This record gives sequence, structure tokens and C-alpha cells, in this order.
Amino acid sequence: MAGNSIGKEFVVTSFGESHGKYVGVVIDGCPAGMALSEKDIQLELERRIPPQPQIISERIEKDKVEILSGVFNGFTTGAPIAMIVPNREADSSAYEVIKDLPRPGHADYPARVRYGGFNDYRGGGRFSGRVTVALIMAGGVAKKLLNPFNVDVLAYTKAIGNVIMNKVPSHEEIRKGRYATSVRCPDSKCAKAMQEAIVNARKEGDSIGGVIECIALGVPAGVGEPLFDAFDADIAKVLMLVPAVKGVEFGAGFAVAELKGSENNDAYQMKNGKILALTNNAGGILGGLSSGMPIVVRAAVKPTSSISKEQRTVNLSEMRDAKIKVGGRHDPCVVPKAVPVVESAVTIILVDHLIRAGFIPKVLKEHE
Amino acid sequence: MAGNSIGKEFVVTSFGESHGKYVGVVIDGCPAGMALSEKDIQLELERRIPPQPQIISERIEKDKVEILSGVFNGFTTGAPIAMIVPNREADSSAYEVIKDLPRPGHADYPARVRYGGFNDYRGGGRFSGRVTVALIMAGGVAKKLLNPFNVDVLAYTKAIGNVIMNKVPSHEEIRKGRYATSVRCPDSKCAKAMQEAIVNARKEGDSIGGVIECIALGVPAGVGEPLFDAFDADIAKVLMLVPAVKGVEFGAGFAVAELKGSENNDAYQMKNGKILALTNNAGGILGGLSSGMPIVVRAAVKPTSSISKEQRTVNLSEMRDAKIKVGGRHDPCVVPKAVPVVESAVTIILVDHLIRAGFIPKVLKEHE
Amino acid sequence: MAGNSIGKEFVVTSFGESHGKYVGVVIDGCPAGMALSEKDIQLELERRIPPQPQIISERIEKDKVEILSGVFNGFTTGAPIAMIVPNREADSSAYEVIKDLPRPGHADYPARVRYGGFNDYRGGGRFSGRVTVALIMAGGVAKKLLNPFNVDVLAYTKAIGNVIMNKVPSHEEIRKGRYATSVRCPDSKCAKAMQEAIVNARKEGDSIGGVIECIALGVPAGVGEPLFDAFDADIAKVLMLVPAVKGVEFGAGFAVAELKGSENNDAYQMKNGKILALTNNAGGILGGLSSGMPIVVRAAVKPTSSISKEQRTVNLSEMRDAKIKVGGRHDPCVVPKAVPVVESAVTIILVDHLIRAGFIPKVLKEHE
Amino acid sequence: MAGNSIGKEFVVTSFGESHGKYVGVVIDGCPAGMALSEKDIQLELERRIPPQPQIISERIEKDKVEILSGVFNGFTTGAPIAMIVPNREADSSAYEVIKDLPRPGHADYPARVRYGGFNDYRGGGRFSGRVTVALIMAGGVAKKLLNPFNVDVLAYTKAIGNVIMNKVPSHEEIRKGRYATSVRCPDSKCAKAMQEAIVNARKEGDSIGGVIECIALGVPAGVGEPLFDAFDADIAKVLMLVPAVKGVEFGAGFAVAELKGSENNDAYQMKNGKILALTNNAGGILGGLSSGMPIVVRAAVKPTSSISKEQRTVNLSEMRDAKIKVGGRHDPCVVPKAVPVVESAVTIILVDHLIRAGFIPKVLKEHE
Repeated sequence: MAGNSIGKEFVVTSFGESHGKYVGVVIDGCPAGMALSEKDIQLELERRIPPQPQIISERIEKDKVEILSGVFNGFTTGAPIAMIVPNREADSSAYEVIKDLPRPGHADYPARVRYGGFNDYRGGGRFSGRVTVALIMAGGVAKKLLNPFNVDVLAYTKAIGNVIMNKVPSHEEIRKGRYATSVRCPDSKCAKAMQEAIVNARKEGDSIGGVIECIALGVPAGVGEPLFDAFDADIAKVLMLVPAVKGVEFGAGFAVAELKGSENNDAYQMKNGKILALTNNAGGILGGLSSGMPIVVRAAVKPTSSISKEQRTVNLSEMRDAKIKVGGRHDPCVVPKAVPVVESAVTIILVDHLIRAGFIPKVLKEHE
Repeated sequence: MAGNSIGKEFVVTSFGESHGKYVGVVIDGCPAGMALSEKDIQLELERRIPPQPQIISERIEKDKVEILSGVFNGFTTGAPIAMIVPNREADSSAYEVIKDLPRPGHADYPARVRYGGFNDYRGGGRFSGRVTVALIMAGGVAKKLLNPFNVDVLAYTKAIGNVIMNKVPSHEEIRKGRYATSVRCPDSKCAKAMQEAIVNARKEGDSIGGVIECIALGVPAGVGEPLFDAFDADIAKVLMLVPAVKGVEFGAGFAVAELKGSENNDAYQMKNGKILALTNNAGGILGGLSSGMPIVVRAAVKPTSSISKEQRTVNLSEMRDAKIKVGGRHDPCVVPKAVPVVESAVTIILVDHLIRAGFIPKVLKEHE
Repeated sequence: MAGNSIGKEFVVTSFGESHGKYVGVVIDGCPAGMALSEKDIQLELERRIPPQPQIISERIEKDKVEILSGVFNGFTTGAPIAMIVPNREADSSAYEVIKDLPRPGHADYPARVRYGGFNDYRGGGRFSGRVTVALIMAGGVAKKLLNPFNVDVLAYTKAIGNVIMNKVPSHEEIRKGRYATSVRCPDSKCAKAMQEAIVNARKEGDSIGGVIECIALGVPAGVGEPLFDAFDADIAKVLMLVPAVKGVEFGAGFAVAELKGSENNDAYQMKNGKILALTNNAGGILGGLSSGMPIVVRAAVKPTSSISKEQRTVNLSEMRDAKIKVGGRHDPCVVPKAVPVVESAVTIILVDHLIRAGFIPKVLKEHE
Repeated sequence: MAGNSIGKEFVVTSFGESHGKYVGVVIDGCPAGMALSEKDIQLELERRIPPQPQIISERIEKDKVEILSGVFNGFTTGAPIAMIVPNREADSSAYEVIKDLPRPGHADYPARVRYGGFNDYRGGGRFSGRVTVALIMAGGVAKKLLNPFNVDVLAYTKAIGNVIMNKVPSHEEIRKGRYATSVRCPDSKCAKAMQEAIVNARKEGDSIGGVIECIALGVPAGVGEPLFDAFDADIAKVLMLVPAVKGVEFGAGFAVAELKGSENNDAYQMKNGKILALTNNAGGILGGLSSGMPIVVRAAVKPTSSISKEQRTVNLSEMRDAKIKVGGRHDPCVVPKAVPVVESAVTIILVDHLIRAGFIPKVLKEHE
């Protein structure tokens, strides 16, 4: 056990369950001297909830963060920052059934095996997407830390089902447009088609998946800790632990399998006295170190496991075949909610590695 | 710095460089009481070298392992196991040029930035595929640990360039066939086409990529440490730090983006008193815990970065554009060599998590 | 930074400040299946406050714990257990002066240097003895974990100033008597003299130190992780980070310097089919492993640094000599309050190592 | 298991056994750009062997270090530095007896329990003082790292048996004198009496203990990671894991128990524009942070457990009482050999914390 922390210098510890009292986080290692208030975090929390109600679950989560420690006179102190969001309006009754009938696609069955049946199964408990609120809170602190360093992390929806945004958007388009559409796609035409795909899936009592792309701009060359805390390896890890993510790829990604070396290698050139690559098939990482080019990573997000269609399952107490229709409130597509989670998760790793590389100092500036 | 260890209970620390004196590894946390000799490791090392000389580099690496500690009277003692392989026949002269001319696709440039030019650049130094010998050695110990538990890890080449093995092989076919062909593909017809693709790339002074699939059989349900040391997240991490890997996916992988929940969810059924899933789109992992189904993961391997074709680069000392033709010996395709590396890497994580879950005990049996 | 966690399997993360909103703790790695309620923790918290008001500070801390996560239906779930105690009645006004005038014996000066002046200096902030409430909370969980294994940790006051309890008390006397006197000494006659010494120190506007002995009973032989996570090394570490502790010794301790090997070695004997030592100069630990004998460790506690007598200091803003009389409420002797802290700290390490050694399982029992 | 590494940024992993092939170490996290050769380490290794043969064991250990990795062109590269010392002249025959007859004072018995009898028991195996050679090697690297920062760590023998060096030596006397006497005491008169005490113990077939004091000069204020990686806590840990150490104290140490706060507090003063303390009862550490004063710590070293006098023990195979006379070669007093080990151990922790605090950069200087 004891796997609920991530990071080595900027260490994020998560706690809380879907239908428990709180979801919370402790950040250990945040540099002293950064202005921080609950407002900074609140903004990020609100990005989790897409404005169009028809594409999300009916559970309206008006999350309100409380900072418990680590901030004094409006600045971080260098001490651990604990934050909580109370869980409200949780209706657990619908989940009593899953105690014995594991929902296909969810962690219900292996969790019961692992924890001897003591795990909080309500709403998926510790395995619920709800718990990503902890990543959002920590990501809010991490994003604020990056501000003075001109490092920017931008995630957006690249595909929902077979609706793919093939046009490569400019960074400015992503920055401005990603939270302007309810599906978190900066191309409004694509966004509309994506929304339709989600609505259709819901109508069928079904769900749908997608792809999120995340770009980190302004990361200097040479960040990362090879061999075993390689930058891409740590990013892949943090993305794979975002619920519903089943694949991660950098730059050209799986397409590299069919490329020749002469096509895939990113040749260097001098441009205005700076070293740049002509292409970015590497996705900004070479040998586990940032190359100075934008870091580009994509995550495949599976369709929501909770669907109202009847599915086959087993009754764990009676050890016999059974059927289940998953009740409770759930999103027909988790991609829009996962966009800020991906952004937060990548930013947390970025900050951890930027501190490790000595790029972010341990005290931000002298006190006035 | 300090990122050269992986694992929490079965901790693998790597050291050594491509053209230094040794490549080595220390394993801390190997249970006491396992029979171990250099022969066990030697076998794994030899799997790294495909028999067909035309598809590998001309550097003939007859690696010979020495166990330095942790074994007494033929059994592991519970103390750290250190192992080294001396580097032989390394020809460093060809690499002097890369000191100033970073090779596209390699870590030369970011490594120089990170280490202030002090890094050992010969043959890529610490970033060379040569260093995966450490993973192979540790993997050899990990594989032996799994023997009595009937857990088996099988990797094989699924694609080279556009030659894809579409047929799903049986586990027995992979077990017997993967090391029978020089490209490590269990289907001899596919293997022949793959080999041709490699030979053709070499003829053009170019290189080619591929996909490796890895299957872990016999892993019980409930292994993994959610949320942040999730089983799939740790496997994704270890695969992403294998040199040349640019993407990782589990089960249905990136295809989940286009699936409906009702298609993607793996329904449960009872079979002979055991709980099984009808499909395995999850790739054997749900919520970061093993589901009891085979773990199925794929890694995208980029074409070798070292190619003899001329490429654009920059001269770092003179800060001007330059050209490079990469000399030295290199493989036109690293996929065949990477197959046992992937197998070892996944096995190391498996063992770490099986110990963490209490499945593998800390002393294997009482002394005779 | 990032040094606010301790333990490898039973990981305790502390947060909160003396005059902030809360003191809190997260425990990651507590086995599933242990009955736990706030009452269990409340009991330990109350042991922190000796009943005699004349020997403690006037700040009456009626601490009330809230469990935020990790418990479901009255049992631990295997998920992180977060707990907080709100800080009440804190009067920060008296501490404004220490912003510029570091109190001798306190961390005020080095903390200001380290955190660039951003640290919360009120009441010592993160460095206050108040923060040991986190250890008490975690210790409460740890103690409950040990119950079914017949492992018992007993601390008591061995000396206050020059009043020393020379008689070696029986384990039963310590168990029953330590919390029966306000100074936490099981010998009521000694306790009376100790209390007088404390009252006298207070009258002089001064403070006084002491020695705490801690005994762990029932620890099986072979627990500990040599070489570098040796059992005694980890216990020494956790005791040295209890505020005011300046020395730690095991068994014969510093007296070993004057002993001969033939006097100091603990010879073995068979007794009722069990292996016992005739003496316990080793304090129950050999080579970093428990020997099966009681673990005996002592901690030297310095006199409270806060005293009302005038002391020399410097003005950090004006960089000139200055005088300080420390206001605020403070205990003339922290030894009585430190007794349950020492007990908790040692128990936390014990539990961590008993889990690491496989002695405490990861799920306590099957669910009813 | 997996407790053979120490440090978080400067991570030292130890391997090897007393009578195995090698004793070795891997350092992960050493900054790039430091000149390093085997000569630097060799010097430290030779300090382990006091010149007077009559006070040490007859086993003449001419240790010769080999650097396996991490150094290129005479400078550290930022990659892990692995080093080994081959074990020579080990005579294991005398140790066969201890397989069944655990030596009082040694780890033989608990080690057998822990490792199910698989541990290498020859010469104490992993628990032998011989293994401190790993600390010496790592300490050699750490000492060299501190050179440009004017931080200096000086250990010396303060007492052997009841011969105590009461005079407080100047730092210069320690620096020059500690390795000038065979007992590592800078006062030649005391040294002579200490040597006599050792020789007398040997004559009786017995052994004798002592006290080592270690002083770190030049450590800036504010180093350490409170709460749980406090500087003094980490130093206490590393000293307690040096074989034979049974107690650790800082500054006034155990004497604080009898001091008043007004006596023990170190008042501040301005001196030449710098903040100094008038006394140093704190031993240079307040609240887990360095105060800017010298760090002063003492370790109590027990008499060597191996003595030729007959002792009671038990036969573990036959489970009956037995007698043992410990053969093999052993030192009548380990204090002189432990002085450089203490110095190395403290320096390793210092370097780890100086890197963590950002005081030592990750690349030492730009390449010429």
C-alpha cells in the first residue's frame, strides 16, 4: 500500500472518496513566497464542470475549496499546503447494489479482492473520477508556480468518438478556445459535432470515448531525470493514472512504428541564435530530457464505464452469473471533465521536474 | 538528479555508460532463499542479441555477467544483489564528432545542456540502448522470482514498419516462438517479411520502427497501488523509459476513443467457479488494479535515430548550422533487441507490485 | 523541501501550524479492516494534556479530532486516512514581536533564513510543539493496529531536572501508572518531586528539562531493514524530530563507552524452549534488527526554550543587539506533554517496520 | 526489505558482505563537473586503518578502490558513480561455528530469524563493520563536493573506556591532529592513555568502547527539511546505523535534562555584522534547521562484540544452551576505525541536505 503520493520535490498526496465527507490533497515541497488564495484554486475547480448540462451527469458539483495550512499572509510558507473540497449532494443509495454486482469496466471487482471487501464502494469510492478533484487542486497550485517562468500547459479535446479535430490549432487558439466550448475543443465546428456524438451516446443509454492532447510550452531544454525518472516516463505515469486513460503517446506516437529514421528524426537548425528542431516528432522529449521544443502528449480516454444499458456481470456473494443496469448519475463522456485533469496532472509533473532541475528556486523572492 | 532507481520493494538501481568500463545494476529487496547463479542472468543477456547478423549492428556484444554480492551458497540472501557486465570492443573514435554536433533523435543536445557538457557523450553514454543491459540483468532475477508463482511475461514483435502481425497468437505460440526468429516475432511468415523490411531500411542507410506487445499471464486480481502507484501507470512509466519507446497502450488502447461503453466494457461471467471477463479491452487492469485477466500492453518503438544518411544539425560550439552523417555501429531496427528489454521491464514492475501486495513473501522457503 | 512524510509502508504526512486553522495528518498505508473511530484518537489527544494546570501552559487545548477519509462503516478501507484538529483559542498577538527578535532556543532565526521570511512565525508556526498533535493522531491509529499482535509501547518520564527515577519499574507499573500522575512518571513519590521541580522553575520564570524512557514489548526478533533503514536508526530519527529532544540512546546507551565487551554483551540462554538474553544492554536491537527482547530507548528533552526571563537576542531587521522576554503561554517543562508524543512516534515506526517485515498483513481479516 | 539506500538527492546505495567478493556503493545524484579520481577515495580508505598494529585486528586490509561508472575525462558526469573494493585475505573458516551459535552482541541471531537462515553469516556478512567501507567511499565523494564551499567535517575520539579527553580542542587541533594518533584523538597525551586502555582490554581477551565527537564547520543557517527530514534527525539516523553506535546526542546532549532554560538557551549577539550565538548548547541545530553555528554531535560506541573470552549462548539447531569463544580476527576497540566512518556518514547527510536546500548546485561549473 502507500501509493497515494506522486512527485519527489513537489509531492502531491491525495485522500478522500467519492461519497465520503471530503476529497483532499496535501502538497509538500511548494516553494515559499508564492501568492496563493482559495480563489486561485476555485477557478480551476470550476473548469471541471462543462457548462452544457446535457453532456454531463446531473450531479451538480459546486465544489468549494478550503485551504487548511501552508499559506500565511497570502503567501505560501514552504510548509505543506493541505486543501479540501467537501462532497455535497452525494446520493449513495443507487450504489448499494454494486457491493455484490461489480460494474463492468470499473474497479469494483479487483478492489473488493484487494481490500477484503472493506473498500468504500459507494460511487466507486476511492476509484471514482470524483477523486481527480485532488489533482485539480494541486494543479491549481502548480499552474500558479509556473506563471513567472512563462511555462504554459494547454490541454484540449482532440477527438470524441470518430469526430477528430484534424486541424492543428495554434497555441493561442488552444489557450483562448479550449474552455470556451463545453467539450473543451477549441474548434467550435468540431466541438458541435463532438457534442452531438455525446448526446447521441446518452440517448442510447451508452457512452463514448475520445482523445486529449496536452502541450507544454516554454519548458527549457535539459529537464528530466534519466534514466528512471525520465520526463516522458513520469508524464506517461501521471496520465495513465487519470481514470479512463488507456494509452499515452508523445509526438508522432504510435505512428513512429511505420516511419523511417530519416522521416522521424527532428533535424536541428539555428534560428535567431537559438537551436530549434525543424519538426517535433519527438514531442519535445529526447532520452527522457526536454529538448526545448513544445512537449506534446496525447491520452486515449475510454468511454465511461457506467452505462444504463443492461450488462452481464456476476454476483460476488452468490458466485453466479447476473445482470446489471448501472444507476446513479454519470457522464456519457468523461473527456470534457478530463481535460483540466490532464492539464493539472502534466503541470504537477512539470513543476516537480523543474524544481528537481533547479529551474524553480525553493524561495520565490525576498519578503517585502 | 537521483533518478536512477525504480521500484519500491524490489528496487532496481542502474549504473554505467555505453563506452565506460561497465554496465551494472543493484537490486535491493530481492527476497531471500531463491536459487540464483550467473547462468540464470547469462541466458537473458543472450536473448538480447538476435542471431541474424544482417539485422543488427556489427558490434558483437558477448556480454558476460558477474554477480558481486547478495548470493551465498547459491541462494539469494536478502541483501542487495549487484551485477556488472564489462563493456568490450567499444570503439569511441566515431563519437568524438557528436560532442559538438548533436545527432537528431538522440539525447546529445539536451544532455549537454543539463550536465553542462560533463556528460559522457561517447556512444550516447548514459542514454545509449546499451544501458538496457541493466534492465535485462534485473529482469533475469525478477523472472526467476516469478517461476514458482506461475506468472509469466511474454513480449514479442507485433509490427516492423508496415508489416503487422494481425493474427492473435496463442500464449503458447508466443512462449515457444518469440525467440525462435531473429526479429522476435512468433509467426515465421511475418518474421520473414519483417526481416526484409529491416534489411531494406539498412540498405537505404535508414532505419525502421515497430510495435512490441507484452502479455503477463497468471497475475492474480487486486495487484497494484492506486491511486498514484497504479499498476498500469507504473508499467507505462517503465516502458516509456525504455529507449525509443514513444507510446504505450493497454488492451484496446487508442482504439477506445472510438468505442461505445457497451462495446468496450468487459462483461463478467462465471466459468468453472471462477470469475472471468468475456473480453479484455481493459488489458487486465481496472482502476490501477489487476483484474485477473492477462495484462496486455503495447509499446511503439521509433526507428533507430542513428542513420548513415546525411542530416541537418547544428554545431554547438560555433552555434551555426551543420550536417552530420552518423558513423559508428548501429542497428537499423532496435525492435528485436527491445523485446527482451520490454519483457524484463514489465517483469520488474510486476515483481515490485507482487511483493507490495504481499503475494511474494520476503523469505521464499526455509533453509534445508 | 518535501520532508513532511515519514515511513515507507505506513506513511505519515503532517501539515498545519501552531496558529493556523488546523493541525492535520494523512496516513497512507494503513491496512484495511481495522475498526477505527474518532473516539480512538480522542483518547490519545487527551493524554497530551496533563491534568495539573500549574505545570502546563494556560492555553487550554480541548482538541477535537475529525476523520476526513479512509474509514467506511467503522473500518479502515486501505485508503489514506486524513485527520484534522482545529486550532482554537490561539492568541497570536504576543508573537508579533518574534518576527524580528528570534527567541533563543527556538527555530525562529534559521526558519526566517530558510523560508525568506515567508514562514508563519506565530507561536513558532510549523516548528511549534503544537504540531506534535499530528504524531499523536497517527500514533493513535498505529497503537490500535498493534492491539491484536500483543505489541505494546510504553513511555514514561524518567527524570525531570535532577529528580531521577532510578528504580526500574515493572512493565505493568508503567502501563498502569504513567498517565496516573501529571508528570507521567509511574512512581508517585518521584512524580511529586518532579512536579515540585517544575513548579519551582516556573516561579523563577525559567524552565526545566528531563528524560523520557520508552519500552516496546512483544516485538518479534528479526524486524528492521538493515543496513540503512535499521530499526534503531529509524527510531532514533523519529525521536530526534520530536521538538526539544537532543539525545537518544538504546539499552545501556552512552554508558557503553565505559563497559568491557564481556560486560556489555547480552549472553543468550534457553528458557522454556525460547531463546532469551540474560541482560538487555543492547536495548532489544542488534545490527539494526530487533532481538526479541524489549526495545528500550531514552530521549533527552531540553528545558522549554520559551522563558519569561529576559534574554539577549538580535533584531533581524535592524541587525543590532536586542533583549527579549518571551510572552505568550508556554509550559515550564514539556516532558509530560512529550511522553505520549514519544510513545506515538515510536509506535509509528514500529508499525511501519512490522508491515515491512510482513508481520502485519495488508488486510486485517475477511469482511463479515 | 529494500532499505539499503540513504539520502534523497545524494542517494547512497550500499552492497556487499564481509566475506563476499566485494564491498561496493552506488552514488546517485552527485552533481556533474567535480574532478574525481580513485586517488581521492583511496586516501579516505587508508584512514580506516590505524597505523599501530597492536590495537587493530591482524587482518590487514589493503583496500583498493575501483570506480566503475559516472566519471569521464576526470570529472563527474551527473550519472551514478559505482565503486567497489575487493575483499582480500578473508578467512571464513573461523566463522562456520557461528552458523548455529549466535555470538552475543552480534546480529547473528536476529539475522537468521529474518532471512530464514539464508543470510551470509561469514564474518557477520552484511552486518559486519567491514561494510562501512561503502560509507567511506561515498564519504570520500561527499567530502570532495564540500571543498569549494568551505564546509568541513571533523570527527575524533573523545573517550575510550574511562579515558576522556575533557579539554575542548580547537578546530585546527582536530583537523591536524585527529589522524596523527593511532586512536584518532588529537591530544597525544590522552591518545597514549587510550591506546593503553585498548591494549589492556586485548590482553584480557576483552574489548572496550568509547565516544566519538563530530563537528561540521561552515554549514550556513537554514539547512534541513523540517518536520520529518530534520537535519539532526537525519544525522542521528545515519550515526545510529554505524555498527556499534548505541547513542547520539547534539550539543549539550543528555546534560540538557538537568539544565534550566536560561542556562541552555543559546542567546544571540551581533559580531562584526554577523549573527552569532554566545553558546552552542543546541549543537548547531534548532527545530531541525542548521543555526549557522558549528554542528556538534557525539556518538557512543559499544565495546567490540567479538571477544575471545568464553560466553554463554545457545545452539540454534539443537535449541540448547551452549558456550562460545569467538575466533577470527577482531579489533579490541572499534572506535579508531569508526572515526572516519562517522566523518563520512555525517558528510553524506550534509551533502544531501545542502543539495536539497539548493546550496550545492547540480552542475558545478561550466565545462572548459
